Amino acid sequence: MPDIQAHSPVAVRDTSLRDGLQSIARTVPTAIKLQWLQALHAAGLRQIEVGSFVPPRLLPQLADTAELVQAACRLPGLEVTALVPNLRGAEAAMAAGAHVMLLPLSASHAHSLANLRKTPDDVVAELGRIRAARDAAGGSCRIELGISTAFGCTLQGAVAPAEVLRLLRQGLEAGADRVSLADTVGYADPLQVGRLFEAALRVAGERLTAAHFHDTRGLGAANVMAAWQAGIRGFDACVGGIGGCPHAPGASGNVATEDLAYLFGSMGVPTGLHFAALMALRDRIAGWLQDEPLHGAIWRAGLPKTFPTAGLAA
Amino acid sequence: MPDIQAHSPVAVRDTSLRDGLQSIARTVPTAIKLQWLQALHAAGLRQIEVGSFVPPRLLPQLADTAELVQAACRLPGLEVTALVPNLRGAEAAMAAGAHVMLLPLSASHAHSLANLRKTPDDVVAELGRIRAARDAAGGSCRIELGISTAFGCTLQGAVAPAEVLRLLRQGLEAGADRVSLADTVGYADPLQVGRLFEAALRVAGERLTAAHFHDTRGLGAANVMAAWQAGIRGFDACVGGIGGCPHAPGASGNVATEDLAYLFGSMGVPTGLHFAALMALRDRIAGWLQDEPLHGAIWRAGLPKTFPTAGLAA
Repeated sequence: MPDIQAHSPVAVRDTSLRDGLQSIARTVPTAIKLQWLQALHAAGLRQIEVGSFVPPRLLPQLADTAELVQAACRLPGLEVTALVPNLRGAEAAMAAGAHVMLLPLSASHAHSLANLRKTPDDVVAELGRIRAARDAAGGSCRIELGISTAFGCTLQGAVAPAEVLRLLRQGLEAGADRVSLADTVGYADPLQVGRLFEAALRVAGERLTAAHFHDTRGLGAANVMAAWQAGIRGFDACVGGIGGCPHAPGASGNVATEDLAYLFGSMGVPTGLHFAALMALRDRIAGWLQDEPLHGAIWRAGLPKTFPTAGLAA
Repeated sequence: MPDIQAHSPVAVRDTSLRDGLQSIARTVPTAIKLQWLQALHAAGLRQIEVGSFVPPRLLPQLADTAELVQAACRLPGLEVTALVPNLRGAEAAMAAGAHVMLLPLSASHAHSLANLRKTPDDVVAELGRIRAARDAAGGSCRIELGISTAFGCTLQGAVAPAEVLRLLRQGLEAGADRVSLADTVGYADPLQVGRLFEAALRVAGERLTAAHFHDTRGLGAANVMAAWQAGIRGFDACVGGIGGCPHAPGASGNVATEDLAYLFGSMGVPTGLHFAALMALRDRIAGWLQDEPLHGAIWRAGLPKTFPTAGLAA
């Protein structure tokens, strides 16, 4: 265990407003989303993915993304991420003032064709066009290439690590400022995670900034640990563990932000997150989403008596 | 990640008939328990803890432990464990023919006094008497000292690792054949687990045979991974994740046997467990226990398409 790194901080990026809400049919009113955003910031989140610049006819529940980006940019010290599926979305993200635009690329060809109607290499080519447009405009918005289905795919099954690494390399060459790897469907195991992140870090170094895990099969925390041990210090998560997987009915969603606050807090790893504030927001989300199931683990039993509070947000 | 050891097998000891049933008020009929036992064996379990030789007035639901031990001893290739709280229980375990008697010792003095009405050192002294009785009788029953609340306690809070290691050493000197460490109340985090198991392995070597985790706060799988990375190859678990913690209402119980079959199976680590048989038993247990909540994770979404079945039990 890497004791020496135990106290280097970890950044949790909450993606409940994007990955969480995109998988829920109900449209949450913008006024509620603004409270949600404020509460995330008040709970110590300094990276938030607030929405997605996809056509509103595809995801009407995220049609107010530009307004959310603008509101988020007024919150002090916050890095604001928005998902963009293509150049058109990237232009909208830049116009709204997002700090990071996250371009998803599915390493599974089958998933890429089914989900984006493009091959992975088409997405790399689009990334090149986004980079050219960003540079031509003199913009400062960072381009993050998010490689999804990096650990397997419900359509295709296995995804070769060599293909993930090839796409990572191509994406960096095409102009990505940073990259991240996602276990979109909850297929990853900790050994696989350790191996792929170690290999990806050799390719991308510090430009590999985040790991994105779903807790579909109960290995979310174990996979976060494996990526952390490999050296990753950025993790996506959703308050309340929302963000389902349409291919795994009944499964839980993203790893829960409050569970990561507990995991890292227990180990003395600073996250800047306020546990009680996250739990209070979880309760509010339960009210806003009514019949949607929330997930996560720590909410059931609460913090242990031994949870270290000295020097950490309570 | 220890690639080189990835394929050394792991032994899962199911403790649903003991740790699971002792926390449930309902008494399961012996005939049902015998079906349960058979099904565990048929699912590939080769270590089962079948009950506890405590006075029936304290745990009436385990009053048939002697009958279960005798039945279990007729199953081929099975190592049969029974919990014993003291010399009297040890004599009963030996008379019934158990292969392993598990003597619990709570490293938390507060928990030890509240739960066993003895100090930890009183339990070490009792262990010495049990060893003497076993040797005098020429018996072959192995004595396992199970150190509980090794990672913290709901009554006392923190438990010093030095105290756990001291009790481990004392227990081995007093005659324990093997030792195990338990996170009885679900307080452990993966860094703590890695550190304590590494230190305990330096004290006990191969005589440290098992890790016992509860998934109270969602870190069960991560803690199993941490102990596995430290070198532990034996893990307690309960089918259906039963086995609650009375101090954490609403919390989940022991790590689920089927979740460990999935975790290790995904990584290509042999367990000898038959996944489908475990899931079928889980369903039967849900029927037998009716309104009791079951836990665990993999049952919700099922195995991923990529689960390696070649060379493993399906």
